[in-house]
Amino acid sequence: MILQGACAILLAVRIIHTSELTVPLRGDIANAVVNFAEHTVSLVALVSDQKVDGRPVIGLGFNSIGRFGQSGILRERIFPRLLAADPEALMCDGELSPTAIAATAMRNEKPGGHGDRAGAVAAVELAAWDLRAKLAGEPACRTIARTFGRAADTSVAVYAAGGYYYAADSTRRLCEELRGYRESGFGAFKIKIGGAPIHEDAQRIESALEIAGDGTNLAVDANGRFDEATADAYAQMLEPYGLRWYEEPGDPLDYALNAHLTATYPMPIATGENLFSAADAQNLLRYGGMRSQDVFQMDPGLSYGLGEYATMIEALERQGFSRQQCFPHGGHLINLHIVAGLGLGGCEAYPGVFQPFGGFGPEVHIASGRAALTERPGFGLEGKPELAEPIASLTEHAV
Amino acid sequence: MILQGACAILLAVRIIHTSELTVPLRGDIANAVVNFAEHTVSLVALVSDQKVDGRPVIGLGFNSIGRFGQSGILRERIFPRLLAADPEALMCDGELSPTAIAATAMRNEKPGGHGDRAGAVAAVELAAWDLRAKLAGEPACRTIARTFGRAADTSVAVYAAGGYYYAADSTRRLCEELRGYRESGFGAFKIKIGGAPIHEDAQRIESALEIAGDGTNLAVDANGRFDEATADAYAQMLEPYGLRWYEEPGDPLDYALNAHLTATYPMPIATGENLFSAADAQNLLRYGGMRSQDVFQMDPGLSYGLGEYATMIEALERQGFSRQQCFPHGGHLINLHIVAGLGLGGCEAYPGVFQPFGGFGPEVHIASGRAALTERPGFGLEGKPELAEPIASLTEHAV
Repeated sequence: MILQGACAILLAVRIIHTSELTVPLRGDIANAVVNFAEHTVSLVALVSDQKVDGRPVIGLGFNSIGRFGQSGILRERIFPRLLAADPEALMCDGELSPTAIAATAMRNEKPGGHGDRAGAVAAVELAAWDLRAKLAGEPACRTIARTFGRAADTSVAVYAAGGYYYAADSTRRLCEELRGYRESGFGAFKIKIGGAPIHEDAQRIESALEIAGDGTNLAVDANGRFDEATADAYAQMLEPYGLRWYEEPGDPLDYALNAHLTATYPMPIATGENLFSAADAQNLLRYGGMRSQDVFQMDPGLSYGLGEYATMIEALERQGFSRQQCFPHGGHLINLHIVAGLGLGGCEAYPGVFQPFGGFGPEVHIASGRAALTERPGFGLEGKPELAEPIASLTEHAV
Repeated sequence: MILQGACAILLAVRIIHTSELTVPLRGDIANAVVNFAEHTVSLVALVSDQKVDGRPVIGLGFNSIGRFGQSGILRERIFPRLLAADPEALMCDGELSPTAIAATAMRNEKPGGHGDRAGAVAAVELAAWDLRAKLAGEPACRTIARTFGRAADTSVAVYAAGGYYYAADSTRRLCEELRGYRESGFGAFKIKIGGAPIHEDAQRIESALEIAGDGTNLAVDANGRFDEATADAYAQMLEPYGLRWYEEPGDPLDYALNAHLTATYPMPIATGENLFSAADAQNLLRYGGMRSQDVFQMDPGLSYGLGEYATMIEALERQGFSRQQCFPHGGHLINLHIVAGLGLGGCEAYPGVFQPFGGFGPEVHIASGRAALTERPGFGLEGKPELAEPIASLTEHAV
């Protein structure tokens, strides 16, 4: 114990500065529920006292895509707790500990109520993983894999998510969009349903299948919009197409509706992106009727980070599911590394939308439906040109 | 339709200004999970264009007690949506509509993730109820009762919640605290458990029973701390005392643990204060094994406001439960009016703690365990001296 303590003192990494920037998402697209033009993301920096080439090593993270920045929770609750903590309490076995950082971020928080807070904590915890990987001089997927006792995958199965409803000329633009994805190396696609009458959605699916080819290359996403009758009607319409999956038919917390669908719809159901804690994911496992062909889409960036996400994976494997059934929501670099590091089924990609965060950037080569991880340290956010400006303004006072 | 539109134009109440103030809670007390010294509350004002005696009529609300203020979510997401809305869209049948205001506050928000956002929306929705009641010149309990087609109760059964762990001399101060509540007219009490070893908690309960008299006058609260083994051990220790209820033994989302306890512990179990949406409450009803003797503690101020709360009441009555089983968490004036307006079982009170929000203030007379509602318009927050200063600084630019 004394030796360990001495070792920690010797190697203690200090977080000397925290900062956050609320970054608006670009693009005028909508799914069945929301328009994304107002959505924002919190980009977070943890500035360490360690230097490489005279510049401080900085961990970067963000709270995935599709919800909102969390400047209030970060500034008022989380950052003060981190900066007040004993630096040694944020270390474990001589390395910066994302687990300890998440626990410190959650000091004095009550159980339950897993919403905005879960994204705020996640941005910080993921920045700690980025920092830990950069301090080790390796891509985050390798740091993650090592921590969880495995080897990182060198490439990851990806699918292009998009297929939103455009304000005008929606079907033609949908086909154009998917054709673009195919030309960039994607072989599987996901499009939105539920934002148009069911017969129009069927036409959209048929148009999309002209590009996707087989139904197993096309998933559809209802974004939690349907009641049971509508979910059933869509299930009947979808079944003959033999689609890759039917995503989030009903409210994310309506496990009974999910169980009803998995009992009646033979093809895969996907859900979980709006469950923001291991306790919620556990309830999906207990009550949601999930089967071996179904897909889990919990997103570390919305649910307290990688540590909580690993707890979910553990729970689902304990109950006989495979991590190959996991395709996290949020098509960006952080989740690409997490999928490679944990050996999950695959990763969503937003090649064309949700800039500056969507997609993997020019360094990540995509071919035959797989994305190859690079050697850039951390999550590699610095290798994505769209992020250069927000990262510069977030960190300008630190370097 | 045209007539209704014309009528709405004639009577439209405009919200011309919104403001929020983060108010820290006073007191150095702790339960089994958190220390409250850092907790804050968002006090919200909706300033209308209507005047009485030359002063604008202002609706006031707050996001209950026990979590955190939500300045970020209010300023960045909710207030801009309200101020951008067509004033007529916030009206219904010629009255300001808290339902429409909550729906506007939730524009472009996704399903699921019911946490901090639920409190931010609640503060605004409750301020709308306060405003609506003040415009009608009546106490909020009457406005609420009328809206839901019933008559308001003139008094409400209350119990004094406290019994926290003090840093020093905890048991003596516990007894002093409960004696003070008894002298103020309370006949039932709630104390914390789980913050000390089980045999010490048993001694605390025995000390508390000397003041409470019968076990049916004393509830205990574990604040979601226990795993199944600990919850079982406490159940065995508690059973002989015949207590009023055993509150939140396990994680609020662990419905299976709750069902296990209701199957084995014969006395009442209470839970629900950390379920922040009708969807979560529905899952408690479906999977939690709740019985006719158990108690529901969902809190409107933490869960999108009175409208969402009414949806929960409707769901539980539809499933054979009684609204007399509902004792909302949060012992303050807003919930006192909601309990009287909806005819619920009773209301928590924090007579000594969580100032400036806890308790009902000197105008509310408490005797024989009942609190009498007053004629002050709205929720009557202006009648609570501890709130005078925060209300003044929140509204100083509006009057």
